Amino acid sequence: MTSLDEKFRKLGTDNAPGQEVRQNNNNAELPLTGESLPGIAVDFSHGDVDAFEPTPGAFEHFSEGVNIGGKRAYTEYRGDGKIRETLAASLGAFTGAPVASQRQLILTPGSQGALFLAMAATISAGDKVAIVQPDYFANRKVVEFLDAEMVPVQMNYLSGEQHAGLDLSQLEAGFKNGVKVFVFSNPNNPTGVIYSAEEIDAIAQLAARYGVTVIVDQLYSRLLYSNERYTHLRALPGAPENLITIMGPSKTESLSGYRLGVAFGSEKIINRMEKLQAIVSLRAGGYSQSVLQTWFAEPAGWMEERIRQHQAIRDDLLNLFSNIDGVAIRRPQAGSYLFPRLPALRLKEEEFVRILRHQAQVIVTPGSEFSPHATQSVRLNFSQDHQAAVKAVERMAELIERYRK
Amino acid sequence: MTSLDEKFRKLGTDNAPGQEVRQNNNNAELPLTGESLPGIAVDFSHGDVDAFEPTPGAFEHFSEGVNIGGKRAYTEYRGDGKIRETLAASLGAFTGAPVASQRQLILTPGSQGALFLAMAATISAGDKVAIVQPDYFANRKVVEFLDAEMVPVQMNYLSGEQHAGLDLSQLEAGFKNGVKVFVFSNPNNPTGVIYSAEEIDAIAQLAARYGVTVIVDQLYSRLLYSNERYTHLRALPGAPENLITIMGPSKTESLSGYRLGVAFGSEKIINRMEKLQAIVSLRAGGYSQSVLQTWFAEPAGWMEERIRQHQAIRDDLLNLFSNIDGVAIRRPQAGSYLFPRLPALRLKEEEFVRILRHQAQVIVTPGSEFSPHATQSVRLNFSQDHQAAVKAVERMAELIERYRK
Repeated sequence: MTSLDEKFRKLGTDNAPGQEVRQNNNNAELPLTGESLPGIAVDFSHGDVDAFEPTPGAFEHFSEGVNIGGKRAYTEYRGDGKIRETLAASLGAFTGAPVASQRQLILTPGSQGALFLAMAATISAGDKVAIVQPDYFANRKVVEFLDAEMVPVQMNYLSGEQHAGLDLSQLEAGFKNGVKVFVFSNPNNPTGVIYSAEEIDAIAQLAARYGVTVIVDQLYSRLLYSNERYTHLRALPGAPENLITIMGPSKTESLSGYRLGVAFGSEKIINRMEKLQAIVSLRAGGYSQSVLQTWFAEPAGWMEERIRQHQAIRDDLLNLFSNIDGVAIRRPQAGSYLFPRLPALRLKEEEFVRILRHQAQVIVTPGSEFSPHATQSVRLNFSQDHQAAVKAVERMAELIERYRK
Repeated sequence: MTSLDEKFRKLGTDNAPGQEVRQNNNNAELPLTGESLPGIAVDFSHGDVDAFEPTPGAFEHFSEGVNIGGKRAYTEYRGDGKIRETLAASLGAFTGAPVASQRQLILTPGSQGALFLAMAATISAGDKVAIVQPDYFANRKVVEFLDAEMVPVQMNYLSGEQHAGLDLSQLEAGFKNGVKVFVFSNPNNPTGVIYSAEEIDAIAQLAARYGVTVIVDQLYSRLLYSNERYTHLRALPGAPENLITIMGPSKTESLSGYRLGVAFGSEKIINRMEKLQAIVSLRAGGYSQSVLQTWFAEPAGWMEERIRQHQAIRDDLLNLFSNIDGVAIRRPQAGSYLFPRLPALRLKEEEFVRILRHQAQVIVTPGSEFSPHATQSVRLNFSQDHQAAVKAVERMAELIERYRK
């Protein structure tokens, strides 16, 4: 079983968010300096849905789904027709191009489910797949699972504020060289940067020119900070023919516990995704599907307030990081991730991450999950209690000083 | 994209349970004889969770999960540790061999999720996989998705009542010839037969002799009729080293709307399944996991009553089918499926299935989904309102007469 052994060795999850319990917890071997720092534990590996609660009415809709009973428990694999109808209208309005509810939309168990299905429906063994560095770690892992070949494309997010910093000439070189599928997140996970209109336009043109299928994960596109502009690839006149857009209410709307996501776009790919979902997980949880009725239907002002609160946390943490000597960080334009590059430390990244947890009760995700070139960075999901997050980053700053090279 | 096109063509789901809405609904072209038969519509493609309601307390546990909040929304990928602890004890007691909660158990979105992960964690492209005919249609489809090679093994379920009828010499020939993984359901879906102790023992011995990994789907093993005996492969002294057992509360317990399943067994395979789940769907819905606390903890007498009610429906429908000239049927020993082989008709199976729906408001699943040799059979999930099911099969009998060759 060497080949499967090798494949699953590469699919490591021990450093993935939430998996800390499965790590090596033998702290005796950690090269510790000084005492532990007291404070409220903060798990920045994912958002805190106790600090930012699920959309009002979510549970009531679930409960209504249970009352509907069998009809809601056993929907089509692609999801309940009526719910798709409502959602298609909202998603069409939000992204600026119509979505045909019966042909172009599928409901999935989380946006992770959508990403897996979209990639498995378009990528064969040996295919070349362009993946941005840094980007969401599952992109690369699905490529590995599918025995496809990853073609990395750098995003120089620290080089300016006008653009995300995607290396377009590298992207074109990859496309020229036979890339079949391009997968990227916008806003980018882990940096929170938004691709500029020029970049999205260039992606559309290159995809059309080279016949590349594009999968864009727009999970955080609703949580947009003041004065930021977002370009929806699918709404461009020159949008790629084979394009799947992924969204979901797990993050900004804190509905992760209900496991809901959506994918929409090319009818042919959506059809394949449904066939695949039939053997992967059947469908998004039937009763949970009802919760999607709260999506894009939040109470007036609710989303604005949620954005305001996140922006306030972003600004405070950004300020703290900016005051640490040697930290490089770009201000996120959307979403709730910060991706500081730390100064040189006396420790390996992995050790520092473990020490942070052990001495400061602070959990972050190592940058190596997102790019082999980001081993000096860490990701923080700052959708947390505001004060606890500030205190946690203060402790982090103290430990950076303590372990600085 | 020929190769993916071809793969997804074979992964058809239009005839799968619940997908009828996506079929060709142009009934004008159907070769109809006579008038429609009035009556309450019955969808035998899956159980009716309105007729047989979810386990008492299921919703309350879900609701408790929502109240727990973030800790329950974001569990380990393999599921909440405490819930796994309780479940491991129940599953160990039920199957007759201990389950280590931290190392040998994973919670999945439905037992479909467990099946996909178990197969994808053990099967490489080109591997030979033994699949029983007839058996659950997804077994074959996952083999196709993984680009593996299916080695069919016949189950002659109509040849007697002592054994399921698995062709053991065909199984051994397959194993000798390089089969790497053997996947089967017990009780068998679609026939409801149970493998005898001798058959399970033979499977264990053959798997050990040839080093074959075994995945056994025991989804219906709790719904056992009077005087039936069930042999758990994993409890045998000679159980295969690489063995995964799959169960879930979607059927007998009617919890399908919560999307819950479990897989337990070989630590190495469970580890791989978790890595894969991290990129396929992250985890079983967090709040839903709480509902597993009702599993194997039903009120006293509840399961016995549920079995009694299903047995009564089974006996009535079996009696109706036995009285139709030319029908061959075996009495199911467990679960809620009937798999009658119909007499020769003037129509193709596919047409008769559509006519049943059109003229009698009766939905059944074509036998071709389960085996290429079962095109004269149809599957009925009789977990339905008792009287409505009886009337539906009476209408079916009338149409069989009408379209008989």
